[in-house]
Amino acid sequence: MNPSTREEIPREFPLSPWEEIDQALDAAAAVSRTMRNWPGSRFADFLDAYASEIEARTDALVAAAHEETALPTSPRLADVELPRTINQLKLAAVAARNESWREITIDTATGIRSMKGPIGPVVVFGPNNFPFAFNGIAGGDFAAAIAAGNPVIAKGHSCHPETTRIFAEAAVAAVKSTDMPAALVQLIYRTSHEDGYRLVSDPRIAACGYTGARETGLKLKSAADAAGKPIYLELSSINPVFILDGVLNDRLEAMADEFAGSCLMGAGQFCTNPGMVVISDNEAGQKFVKSVGERFAAAVPGTMLSEGVCRSFGESVQILEKAGAKLVTGGQQSDDERVCYANTLLSTSGAAFLDQPEVFQTEAFGNGSLFVLAESAEQMVEIAESLEGNLTGCIYSDENGDDDATYEQLEPALRTRVGRLLNDKMPTGVAVSPSMNHGGPFPATGHPGFTAVGIPASIPRFAALYCYDNVRAGRLPRILQDASPGAGIWRSIDGNWSTDAVK
Amino acid sequence: MNPSTREEIPREFPLSPWEEIDQALDAAAAVSRTMRNWPGSRFADFLDAYASEIEARTDALVAAAHEETALPTSPRLADVELPRTINQLKLAAVAARNESWREITIDTATGIRSMKGPIGPVVVFGPNNFPFAFNGIAGGDFAAAIAAGNPVIAKGHSCHPETTRIFAEAAVAAVKSTDMPAALVQLIYRTSHEDGYRLVSDPRIAACGYTGARETGLKLKSAADAAGKPIYLELSSINPVFILDGVLNDRLEAMADEFAGSCLMGAGQFCTNPGMVVISDNEAGQKFVKSVGERFAAAVPGTMLSEGVCRSFGESVQILEKAGAKLVTGGQQSDDERVCYANTLLSTSGAAFLDQPEVFQTEAFGNGSLFVLAESAEQMVEIAESLEGNLTGCIYSDENGDDDATYEQLEPALRTRVGRLLNDKMPTGVAVSPSMNHGGPFPATGHPGFTAVGIPASIPRFAALYCYDNVRAGRLPRILQDASPGAGIWRSIDGNWSTDAVK
Repeated sequence: MNPSTREEIPREFPLSPWEEIDQALDAAAAVSRTMRNWPGSRFADFLDAYASEIEARTDALVAAAHEETALPTSPRLADVELPRTINQLKLAAVAARNESWREITIDTATGIRSMKGPIGPVVVFGPNNFPFAFNGIAGGDFAAAIAAGNPVIAKGHSCHPETTRIFAEAAVAAVKSTDMPAALVQLIYRTSHEDGYRLVSDPRIAACGYTGARETGLKLKSAADAAGKPIYLELSSINPVFILDGVLNDRLEAMADEFAGSCLMGAGQFCTNPGMVVISDNEAGQKFVKSVGERFAAAVPGTMLSEGVCRSFGESVQILEKAGAKLVTGGQQSDDERVCYANTLLSTSGAAFLDQPEVFQTEAFGNGSLFVLAESAEQMVEIAESLEGNLTGCIYSDENGDDDATYEQLEPALRTRVGRLLNDKMPTGVAVSPSMNHGGPFPATGHPGFTAVGIPASIPRFAALYCYDNVRAGRLPRILQDASPGAGIWRSIDGNWSTDAVK
Repeated sequence: MNPSTREEIPREFPLSPWEEIDQALDAAAAVSRTMRNWPGSRFADFLDAYASEIEARTDALVAAAHEETALPTSPRLADVELPRTINQLKLAAVAARNESWREITIDTATGIRSMKGPIGPVVVFGPNNFPFAFNGIAGGDFAAAIAAGNPVIAKGHSCHPETTRIFAEAAVAAVKSTDMPAALVQLIYRTSHEDGYRLVSDPRIAACGYTGARETGLKLKSAADAAGKPIYLELSSINPVFILDGVLNDRLEAMADEFAGSCLMGAGQFCTNPGMVVISDNEAGQKFVKSVGERFAAAVPGTMLSEGVCRSFGESVQILEKAGAKLVTGGQQSDDERVCYANTLLSTSGAAFLDQPEVFQTEAFGNGSLFVLAESAEQMVEIAESLEGNLTGCIYSDENGDDDATYEQLEPALRTRVGRLLNDKMPTGVAVSPSMNHGGPFPATGHPGFTAVGIPASIPRFAALYCYDNVRAGRLPRILQDASPGAGIWRSIDGNWSTDAVK
């Protein structure tokens, strides 16, 4: 369905029965064995070629994704998300080439050398909200898994099947032009839930990446865990933002602009959307609620990705209302022509929040947010301490030091509950930086030590640690041998990082 | 019970009811918050002091451990395992001081900086077979968790409670002398299974380390997984050793000496004991079985750790016999005075093994091994391909190249199934090296990317990834600030490793 018109798109896509998944698994397992010792440059060549093939299909991809998701062509699909996706594949190529993800460690005293290497066939489930940058066959998990030398079986999301098909076409072209095996990249479409659980726990699969709704993710995790398979999840996050008093005293209207812009962008359908804001329950705080409410009411709500997303957003708003949150603005579907919901702002008191912290942390995925008005700085800290694991947490504080004492109290509580801590900046943007953590404590993800975004940081998720003890020099992988493996390849030799040969 | 005499040791130790565990959890959670930003040097000071306190108690520790486990005083407890344990704590101190485990990453282009930091309270369950080096309150997991800045709740193993008590005494002395909080190190004794599951999944716990039997480990894993808690397991491993034809042609008797010595050392009670050997079914192979069998029959069997270990070893031998393995020597309990079982060698054909690979991979933890006689090099490869995940895998090949072709075929199959690949060396020794992987694919462990031994490599298991995005310079942890954090502290700055200041 085209969410902008509610019209059915006249295209058909296959379902993937187990017999086909089974074939894909066999092919992935076989090719994984074949490729194990291939140099990173082969995977880099494929990733670069794939980036070019995608670039050459820009118009078709943008048109398909816009039709299927209603995300704006510009500024978003054409000038942000697709370039970012292409860049991510190119960065993964650089990492594959310079082996920077391998954590090469050489200990000359014991004759033991180790490095990360491919883990084996990886399944990637992409989400609905990033048809390009997190697509199972083109996004961050895909790029990381390929850079580590693994074959990928991508599960196409049912919200953007044509977009995914075009990526697959580009991938096949790149596979051919770089002489890679066909099973390096395979695509399956919709499967039964049972087959999904079977897939992630299959003996031929080594690991899985999943970005999406919490309920489905936890079921996949349960199946993968029982089979001893690592599964990397990126689930829900409400991304709390604490705005301290000095900021509202100094620049209330500018802050309202910044917040409303960030929260409503892309109809709020970001994993890092600021879904909860904590401010003081004083005159400035109340004025801030009013100001943001006016902006929300005045802005045309964005079209949502699907009926399912819209319905689920409405249900979450109702859960929050039922828990006692007051509706400042919004709270209903807003347009019959297209899939959309009024920009929605809710508010509640700090005491009410602390009474039912779980319920008030219900993720409302979409163009809305919950404001929590705290009685005191101490209550803000208590609220922070009641938070589940989140991808991000942010504190805005003033520039002249009035908020510093509160910051000092708040930061320790927030720090351990989020993967990325921000100052004075909305969490929505997720830079593809080697220092990025797009991750965080459970239930934001399944393990607080890993990031889903950032090259090379996201790559070792799809790697195993391979240690060589007393293995004869000529039999070691080239990059573990004494000679310098080439410019720019860092190795930790006897505790020091170096690009030189082993002395 | 003293396994050397079957006499009860007249000492009593407490059980740990949930009320006490609950108090330990509260204290650990509180102290984890307090310590979060403490410099690594504080933990280093504690680890060094603890190492000294242990050294000062050498005689008492060795006497207690010898009495409780029957492991030889020398060469083992006094001159190998205790020095290794002390060294491990000192290496962890070095890592805590130079922050080498933190994977500090600075990206000046985006203003994003990240590092690993403490994950929170850690529970450590040590095994029965290393009263010192893997003890929950003194071993590798303990050292790694403390080096990362976490409080530890250690579960004392019921096989060596007095040894553990002496360690706890030393830990308390070190806590006091270095002015650390009492809840940095806490010890619980035997609990119910239910309380064990509750402990590893408690919201106040951040992660868990477990070394021991597979069945218990998988139950703990299931509880921890459901709560979204990382749990690092070191479970069973049979450590396959492939001895190629050229080796037996060149030095059959020396090889038999080397194998028998390694397999019978410490009554074979090592996680890395060579429990399965694959050789060719030819004249040399059969002679090798006979030679090893003679050595096994001639050697006095070591005393085992406990009745439970002895019984379980016997049960595994029976499972292997029932599956069709032939008894070359041993196969029954051997002495009424002490806990011990005859050195046991079993053999089977490659075809029989491939018929029931799961059953023939039953771990017999103790002084025994299963020899598999393969028809051909191709069958050796098939056997390797049928293996579960193991900690180690080893290939012995000759020096003049006759075995090289077989090595080439075998290595890829074995490589992905083991954490540590060895050449021409028994797997029993586990060096505390930064390149060590004492880990491997499931079910040897729960995740193939982590090692339980090796400093700093084992430390990040007990860490979360903390990212700072646009955080004001003065608010960053010191080691993420522009200035060089000190000699020997490596940081990845814009893709290059350096000990310098950010330019």
